Amino acid sequence: MGERIGITYLLTVSAGEDPAARAREIALEQTVELPDGRYPEYIEHRVVGRVDALERDGARWRVTISYDPITAGDDLPQFLNLLFGNISLMQGIQVVGLELPASVLRRFSGPRFGIAGIRQLTGAVDRPLLCAAAKPMGLSSNALADRCRAFARAGIDIIKDDHGITNQPTSPFEERVPRCQDAVAAADAESGNHALYFPNVTSPIAALPARLDCARRAGCRGVIVSPMLVGIDAIHWIAETYGLAVFAHPTFTGALFHPEHGVTPEILYGQLFRLAGSDGVVYTNAGGRFPFAEGVCEAINTHLREPLGNLKPAFPVAGGGVDVERVPYWIDRYGRDMVFLIGSSLYARPDLEQASRELVEAVGRHCNV
Amino acid sequence: MGERIGITYLLTVSAGEDPAARAREIALEQTVELPDGRYPEYIEHRVVGRVDALERDGARWRVTISYDPITAGDDLPQFLNLLFGNISLMQGIQVVGLELPASVLRRFSGPRFGIAGIRQLTGAVDRPLLCAAAKPMGLSSNALADRCRAFARAGIDIIKDDHGITNQPTSPFEERVPRCQDAVAAADAESGNHALYFPNVTSPIAALPARLDCARRAGCRGVIVSPMLVGIDAIHWIAETYGLAVFAHPTFTGALFHPEHGVTPEILYGQLFRLAGSDGVVYTNAGGRFPFAEGVCEAINTHLREPLGNLKPAFPVAGGGVDVERVPYWIDRYGRDMVFLIGSSLYARPDLEQASRELVEAVGRHCNV
Repeated sequence: MGERIGITYLLTVSAGEDPAARAREIALEQTVELPDGRYPEYIEHRVVGRVDALERDGARWRVTISYDPITAGDDLPQFLNLLFGNISLMQGIQVVGLELPASVLRRFSGPRFGIAGIRQLTGAVDRPLLCAAAKPMGLSSNALADRCRAFARAGIDIIKDDHGITNQPTSPFEERVPRCQDAVAAADAESGNHALYFPNVTSPIAALPARLDCARRAGCRGVIVSPMLVGIDAIHWIAETYGLAVFAHPTFTGALFHPEHGVTPEILYGQLFRLAGSDGVVYTNAGGRFPFAEGVCEAINTHLREPLGNLKPAFPVAGGGVDVERVPYWIDRYGRDMVFLIGSSLYARPDLEQASRELVEAVGRHCNV
Repeated sequence: MGERIGITYLLTVSAGEDPAARAREIALEQTVELPDGRYPEYIEHRVVGRVDALERDGARWRVTISYDPITAGDDLPQFLNLLFGNISLMQGIQVVGLELPASVLRRFSGPRFGIAGIRQLTGAVDRPLLCAAAKPMGLSSNALADRCRAFARAGIDIIKDDHGITNQPTSPFEERVPRCQDAVAAADAESGNHALYFPNVTSPIAALPARLDCARRAGCRGVIVSPMLVGIDAIHWIAETYGLAVFAHPTFTGALFHPEHGVTPEILYGQLFRLAGSDGVVYTNAGGRFPFAEGVCEAINTHLREPLGNLKPAFPVAGGGVDVERVPYWIDRYGRDMVFLIGSSLYARPDLEQASRELVEAVGRHCNV
């Protein structure tokens, strides 16, 4: 592949269709958007995708097309466009592999904190981190701050806004964020814990800078954002401009994960969200409310943590209905470089703080720390 | 429905599953993200979705759930989240209907120009508009400007950047946009035409304001943007902040259009992109390179043009491989309040300007103007 971007697709080819023609069609659609030959000859070598490999893979065809980095540069929206822009409107094309040359990786700084940096912020050295969500939407800022306080006292490491809580009149951002942050900071001062509060900054473009300023002014060290709602570049922009840790939320990504069309979760979460600069990537764990298989989750974990040029590893954040009782099981499966996001399962207990404390203790015992 | 947001879903329910339980699950997931009863009672009435209707629809179930507007407010990213955020990660849920109460519509200004405003800018009164794309990626700014000039001389109404052309070193934005705009303005001055050039402003957040300033300074009256790459709110933000016309491009939207999971094109393009403020919405027409059915295209056209509270109608922009010879056919099918975006089919001809002129004349003859 050398210094080219390599994208591997699995194609569903119907009877009578020529897989090589389909591959060439993708190479053209994703670059020149013109049929063969309707452009000057030098453009062929400069920007048209090059079909490097094509072979049967079960009932489908596996194709690798390489692209000159000039096509996407260091522009994340255009990167998504190159990966699956117009071809999203076709059928039977699944992006299953992405190889980024060092020259492209170097243009991105990736996670600002990464696993080591988040560990340093929370003081959690040799165990997985625990994350909980202040919820539900509709509560007042004070009620949400009470929940943050309970989690912080119990020793939860990261307390985040529920991702649907934005700026509703029941808890406006500029009111909620300082109250939740103050509650966590006060609980930390009292308990000696190092809990962090990450507000949800997903918002219209015009509001984004003011919300980030507000979060930073309040003393927050990180935020959560939903890249599919505000664009993947929001991760990068926040990390670069505000110096805050960023956890990416998977809302609205699910339509990409069809069995034979889309982009696999391990590429979207494990490679692209990390490339963009996520310090943690939330995904919906196997065995919860969402139908992810354990193998997919493991592939996401692997991608987020494996060496990737100059990019720091990022925390996999397993959520979406993780049962409090099963956390030790998942630690054994996934290892310690994990964040477990526990929501409903804690809220099911009569005393949120007590339930959270028991979870923290169970994880400590399980990890002998 | 009254003053609530109504969302209609078709659910694929497997044997043994209770459709009412699935509906309730959606109502909870999209709001409180907690199972039944794990939240204070008043939250139920304040924010939890209310299942208003549930009935069989062929092999699927049709469910209407209404939401208090408080859940989304006037925040477009949160609107997308309410519509299909976390449930995108489930299976067999298709959003097929969206009813917006007047109180919600009033919070959005919608298209700034709309069909009438774009007609005024182009001077095209009683015929469909013609749009062409300056392409391909890899050409120099001067070569792209030459193509813009040819289209403008021929009488094409709107000349847009190909959506994959952003800021590649072969034609950097700040160099390309003034050159293309100047070429079109000079051709207009000479020919008496009113062609417009719409550059592609899809870009990382940090670059967005500078590119919009550059476009406005150069004299452009409108732009194209890809909402799924930079977030749907970009449409709204550009229209409100820069006063430019906005055409939305459909790249990366296709994964949403699965037969039994996602959001239908008529809702995404016809309702949401219009609500956000698109003056024109590009879609991939039937009979071109992409597999849209004619009925879907007609539904998009209808939604974009029908009365919708205080919102102006927006232009459907049929593209994605429209054949130059078939334009009269599509005019008869879709009516005159259309923009036809012709790409490859013009580039197939030996003389771009001559081919464009013949198209302009053919449309004029067909419409007796």
